[in-house]
Amino acid sequence: MRAFGSDTRLPTVAMVLDLLRERTQVSRIELAQATGLTRATMTNAVRKLIDLGFVHEVGTARSQRGTPRRLLELQPDACHMVGLQFDRFRGVAVIVDLAGGIVARRELPVLGERGPDEVVPELAAAVCEMIGASALAREAIRGIGIATYGPQDRDAGVLLTPQPTPEWQGYPLASAVAEATGLPVAIENDATAAGIGAQHLGAAPSNFAVVYMSGGIGGGLIIDGHPYRGATSNGLELGHISVDPAGAACGCGNRGCLDNVASPVAVAHLASRTPLAARLGLGTDPLEAFGLVGRAAADGDAEAAELIDASVLNLTAAAVTLVNLLDVGSVVLAGSAFTEFGDRYRDAVQDALDRSVFMRHVHSVNVELAGDLAHAAAVGAAMVVLRNLLEEPGLGDRPAPKR
Amino acid sequence: MRAFGSDTRLPTVAMVLDLLRERTQVSRIELAQATGLTRATMTNAVRKLIDLGFVHEVGTARSQRGTPRRLLELQPDACHMVGLQFDRFRGVAVIVDLAGGIVARRELPVLGERGPDEVVPELAAAVCEMIGASALAREAIRGIGIATYGPQDRDAGVLLTPQPTPEWQGYPLASAVAEATGLPVAIENDATAAGIGAQHLGAAPSNFAVVYMSGGIGGGLIIDGHPYRGATSNGLELGHISVDPAGAACGCGNRGCLDNVASPVAVAHLASRTPLAARLGLGTDPLEAFGLVGRAAADGDAEAAELIDASVLNLTAAAVTLVNLLDVGSVVLAGSAFTEFGDRYRDAVQDALDRSVFMRHVHSVNVELAGDLAHAAAVGAAMVVLRNLLEEPGLGDRPAPKR
Repeated sequence: MRAFGSDTRLPTVAMVLDLLRERTQVSRIELAQATGLTRATMTNAVRKLIDLGFVHEVGTARSQRGTPRRLLELQPDACHMVGLQFDRFRGVAVIVDLAGGIVARRELPVLGERGPDEVVPELAAAVCEMIGASALAREAIRGIGIATYGPQDRDAGVLLTPQPTPEWQGYPLASAVAEATGLPVAIENDATAAGIGAQHLGAAPSNFAVVYMSGGIGGGLIIDGHPYRGATSNGLELGHISVDPAGAACGCGNRGCLDNVASPVAVAHLASRTPLAARLGLGTDPLEAFGLVGRAAADGDAEAAELIDASVLNLTAAAVTLVNLLDVGSVVLAGSAFTEFGDRYRDAVQDALDRSVFMRHVHSVNVELAGDLAHAAAVGAAMVVLRNLLEEPGLGDRPAPKR
Repeated sequence: MRAFGSDTRLPTVAMVLDLLRERTQVSRIELAQATGLTRATMTNAVRKLIDLGFVHEVGTARSQRGTPRRLLELQPDACHMVGLQFDRFRGVAVIVDLAGGIVARRELPVLGERGPDEVVPELAAAVCEMIGASALAREAIRGIGIATYGPQDRDAGVLLTPQPTPEWQGYPLASAVAEATGLPVAIENDATAAGIGAQHLGAAPSNFAVVYMSGGIGGGLIIDGHPYRGATSNGLELGHISVDPAGAACGCGNRGCLDNVASPVAVAHLASRTPLAARLGLGTDPLEAFGLVGRAAADGDAEAAELIDASVLNLTAAAVTLVNLLDVGSVVLAGSAFTEFGDRYRDAVQDALDRSVFMRHVHSVNVELAGDLAHAAAVGAAMVVLRNLLEEPGLGDRPAPKR
């Protein structure tokens, strides 16, 4: 097991990049003031970023003492990363630039019930296609980040679950995709990746909990801009906390798990056993069925509303547990399942937190939807590639890449 | 709100002290290797600790290259701190030395239903008495740490709850005790303090979750030896997570809270409404009543066993939630309520985690009782005083104290 805090602080260069993304043009002294780092440390970090071609000087500004300050600016196109998010039901790919901007996006083939031998070549082909269709040279791509479900061995790049088929258990996803694409690959928990992505896609604060909903439900925690890792980077299995001690046994070993009563897969499964199945023409894709049930509920179908209300209610109960345990000031909702009915979940979670959180008299907790619900995890996975790059020990000692 | 990560890393000097506590005699080079810090940083940290009188050189050891290494050793009596833990039902005070050893201990008056004007002078008198009865000069005491319930404003040293009486709401506990004793005072959440204390009282790992049980139930999380703080240092309100969505409304705003079905106060309250009250002669002190019910259960009283079993079952369910959310490798139980029946709770929690935790196929989770259940929070509070001292910016620049 890895230490918890091995990356609880961003390296200086990553902090500087984050500040440059926010502030357009800024001087070294302003950076030192904003980070609390010494001027020498900041000078060193900026030199590394200039050597990498990530940052350049764009002129001077008069300072209060009269000495002009040289202003720095990000070079968004100095570096690009690919981000993937995929699970049984949905998959998306993005190319992201240094500023966190999405410069290309596409859908990916989904896992379904297929094994890696079939899926991985498809993923690799889709990535190569996306890069080919972009105006970017292949050498401009620094690597691929993959956001997917857990449990996983993040350091080894290996999946640790027999879902959806036994071949995935122990499957070396990172090295297989690296071999198939010729690019370095990192894997990340999807909910955690969505948290990292949310920071680049909107006004996410630097400390918040993530509620992630695709087919199932996951959770994440961002502390000072960096993911909480826990013992094995598999923290915040929000979908498998019990919301009903008398509930059904779950394959995970627990009982009354949130995933089984609130996730799109659960809603679709419950709906399939009611007259809604025929009335709404529900098919086998659970996210599509979830969408149909959700729209029927919005249109006043009482049976559909009952299912959605139960999902919302259970999710809000889990969000209260999350906040009571973590004392966060913000909760960010992300994932493709929130795309259509995100506001309904957001409002209900906000209302529940306002009424039920232990700390509500001390501080309020703000609930927000991530900037790009369906792509947040993929963007976050791409930014993981950049963070890994910035954490390399000899960073900046090598020659600057060609611009 | 304070930043989450303002103290996610121990300052170097505190890390060195922790290592010296573990390893008796050690060289600077071994310290640098164990911490991953540079030799220059380590030399500087050791110099500060020698200047403070906390560490001294005790001779040399031959190194592999032939150059002798000077060995360092802790001076346990170079520094002492007072730690208090109190709530409505129990209170203890300790004097702890630099090595974390308890050199004095006593019981404290309890809060009961009393206001600060009555309680604070009693606490201050008890502290002064304890110091007076010890062989220590008053100048040897560096300060007082107080572990107590939340919510609290830790930075300001103020309580933020009208429990047990309205006068405590906004009460400046730290400054009041400081004024009454003439010593600097810090406050800390009791469950968090118990986690810090557990590290000094036994073989607690450096990453673990805490389940704390006195009259009520609290939680803590230690990451790389340092407390998780959350937005306001009021994290892990384990007693107020819901374990039953259909349960009774709690004063906190939530429903079916763990505290109301599993804590000693809850067990005592439930017992008081059954024939057990008369049969066991239960009085008004809930921890005493909890002890009587627990002993009756152990002796085969079916009615008592039902109450204790329900408490155990609900606590185990909450522990599964805690571990599924935090992906910790260890859970430490602490608090006076575990003193007598700790093994029963420990075994039940271990069994539940082995059966029900999402990550159990990836790694096991170990459940342990803290080394000194009833004093762990007080010892932790005392160590908070030392940590504050070691975090002072100008540390070591001042003259060394007299030995």
